[in-house]
Amino acid sequence: MTYRALDEHSVVEYIKSRPKIWGTIFDTDAELDVKEVGDGNLNLVFIITNRKNPEQSVVLKQALPYLRVAGESWPLTRERMRYETKALLKHNELAPGLVPEVYDYDFDMSLVIMEDLSDLVIMRKALVARQKLPHFVDHISTFLARTLFFTSDLYLKGMEKKRMMAEFINEELRKLQEDFVYTNPYMESPENNWNPLVDDEVQAVRSDAALKLEIAEMKNAYMNHTEALIHADLHTGSIMVDAERTKVIDPEFAFFGPIAYDVGAVLQNLVLNYLSHYGHTPDPEERHEYQEYVLDMVRGVWNEFARKFEEIWVENNRGELVPTPYWDFPGGEEAFAEYRRRFIHRLLQETAGHGGVKFLRRMMGIVSVWDITSIEDPRKRAVAERAAIRIGKRWIMERKDVESIEDLINIVREESIPAEKELEEIMSNE
Amino acid sequence: MTYRALDEHSVVEYIKSRPKIWGTIFDTDAELDVKEVGDGNLNLVFIITNRKNPEQSVVLKQALPYLRVAGESWPLTRERMRYETKALLKHNELAPGLVPEVYDYDFDMSLVIMEDLSDLVIMRKALVARQKLPHFVDHISTFLARTLFFTSDLYLKGMEKKRMMAEFINEELRKLQEDFVYTNPYMESPENNWNPLVDDEVQAVRSDAALKLEIAEMKNAYMNHTEALIHADLHTGSIMVDAERTKVIDPEFAFFGPIAYDVGAVLQNLVLNYLSHYGHTPDPEERHEYQEYVLDMVRGVWNEFARKFEEIWVENNRGELVPTPYWDFPGGEEAFAEYRRRFIHRLLQETAGHGGVKFLRRMMGIVSVWDITSIEDPRKRAVAERAAIRIGKRWIMERKDVESIEDLINIVREESIPAEKELEEIMSNE
Repeated sequence: MTYRALDEHSVVEYIKSRPKIWGTIFDTDAELDVKEVGDGNLNLVFIITNRKNPEQSVVLKQALPYLRVAGESWPLTRERMRYETKALLKHNELAPGLVPEVYDYDFDMSLVIMEDLSDLVIMRKALVARQKLPHFVDHISTFLARTLFFTSDLYLKGMEKKRMMAEFINEELRKLQEDFVYTNPYMESPENNWNPLVDDEVQAVRSDAALKLEIAEMKNAYMNHTEALIHADLHTGSIMVDAERTKVIDPEFAFFGPIAYDVGAVLQNLVLNYLSHYGHTPDPEERHEYQEYVLDMVRGVWNEFARKFEEIWVENNRGELVPTPYWDFPGGEEAFAEYRRRFIHRLLQETAGHGGVKFLRRMMGIVSVWDITSIEDPRKRAVAERAAIRIGKRWIMERKDVESIEDLINIVREESIPAEKELEEIMSNE
Repeated sequence: MTYRALDEHSVVEYIKSRPKIWGTIFDTDAELDVKEVGDGNLNLVFIITNRKNPEQSVVLKQALPYLRVAGESWPLTRERMRYETKALLKHNELAPGLVPEVYDYDFDMSLVIMEDLSDLVIMRKALVARQKLPHFVDHISTFLARTLFFTSDLYLKGMEKKRMMAEFINEELRKLQEDFVYTNPYMESPENNWNPLVDDEVQAVRSDAALKLEIAEMKNAYMNHTEALIHADLHTGSIMVDAERTKVIDPEFAFFGPIAYDVGAVLQNLVLNYLSHYGHTPDPEERHEYQEYVLDMVRGVWNEFARKFEEIWVENNRGELVPTPYWDFPGGEEAFAEYRRRFIHRLLQETAGHGGVKFLRRMMGIVSVWDITSIEDPRKRAVAERAAIRIGKRWIMERKDVESIEDLINIVREESIPAEKELEEIMSNE
């Protein structure tokens, strides 16, 4: 079938033509309601429901053809939907229940049909509303440990991994992240955006030679370290939650990159949410209580990720990086344990590096995060932003001395002290 | 055309069917002499000459179909000739004159037709014969700097590089190197070979936990750091020379890997040759003089590589890793200079690491090098081998403290002292 963009009418006919959906997900006498909820730019997103039985519903996501983001310079083809679909299938295989189930897909039409998650909310909203998510740490650490371990050289055979790498070249979306995360925010570039109240801090980053040398090192790792199939856009806007469930969505950026990039994305987005409560939660007690809850999640996500990653490794050392017979010598068991310790310790240091860069890019690049932009008062917003810049810089510059997640949490706590003072000052003038 | 293996008769018909060869390289009235000089295993290699004008000659190299090396475990398809051809074409583009010129190729037939270099000798032979090669340092440093720089993110655009990476997956030959360089030599594996006189040293390596942790780190870099299109088998058996010319051949292992792997291969093979003269050159004065000459080459190759790499970088900073505007701030020029210094310094440290591993693998893995195996007296051979193991281990373990090439040369000198003593003892008993 040749590609055509669907609309609210043609999507019904399309659904009826798909045997994996019609007569399977939907009864053949279903009457379909269609709602388009996409952003109207990159993708169409239809929620399709049987009005005779609203339990029967699907989401159909279709990429719009060739388009440009950020002006003229960054073209994107609808090839991205092929990557998203392939990554969703892989995630369903490795972390079932933690991603939307895929019912059907069509590469020619650049679309995927999947589980309707519209009863969940985007995690940012839940966090800004100070909701408790008692299963999030367990769920996301399982998602991270399993999707990253089982696509790394610790599990895949050398040739399997290279063939899978050939399936995830994804050069267009990689370039977007390379530019927008690691380069453009730190130099003059027309798409950059920042709060004028933090202009001094932004300009200081852009002329901080020592910092930019380290960012360039992290960029080299992002571009070249093909450790595992990473989600590559795992912020809290790509996670849907309720009190019971966690679903990771939108893996169109997926490629073989550094494991720590995904872990860093989760931790850094949690800390950005922590900081956003300087704007969202004026009552100090309420704020501190939830901020501590968020820091517990940061600690939990890292510690549980590290624990599960190692546990899965010990049980599934099938890969060829360090095969079991390599450790077959007196003291070899201890050496293998030490290798795992060093490997995971390196991941923590790189998590600090990539996470640190992502703090900065959100403060001065093309897109911020809703947690921060939804703070109405620009002065309170600046309190969070200045702290984010300080924390990001320190996570990057101090990463090689990081010994445990407590070191990263302590940086957050230390940089919260000036933030509290700034906020007090603003509040006392209100 | 479907694949068929050529023989000395059918190759003549084949040559006459190729317009890029027949009437171009060869006159149409040429009378062809054919000589098959391949190893009879992996590839057929025909030297084809016009007996009426011996200036007219070509080499035709054809991969034999699917075969297994080292017993049953490592299958290879003739896909490898596609990689060799694509790499030869890229090398001709980037380092013309330093590789055999490609006249024609045929992916279906898994063959390439190229410049006849049979008037040159394999570099190992020249070095064992203590020949001087006054242009080698200049030539190989140019080859390294140009082929590696222009296929890295310092020159290629992000999307260009990812698309080129997709062309060089080369999963079969990469697995061979992953196993045979970084893993199997250091554990029990049936294809391993070593001189029984160095059995103690070999067993000590295999149970040296600290060393094996570092080798595993280098293996991770080899498997995952996609910096540039590397030759990946750049030993002195892949280099043909005479007093004037240097030609790098046999790039069938080429893939996107660590830059330092190629540099390390050259330096380590030079040092192995240095050590081989404990067997080949009994006269101490003659030996020391040539060993110093070899060390001068080691120094020259690194220093000229580093100088040219940086010079090309400054003149061609077209890539997207650190684009020029990234350095547009007060002090940015110095920061960029510092970035280049750190980048190249890291390459030196990794050169020590990969080179160090390659010393060890040649002493206890599937293949040694002719420089060493051609030493008839196993005791003298062991003198060289023990020194190679000591040097390899120190290059690996001390790599993170390496500041300049002199540090690596000093390790060679220090480990030559016990070698000299061992040799004296053997000679005094003769």
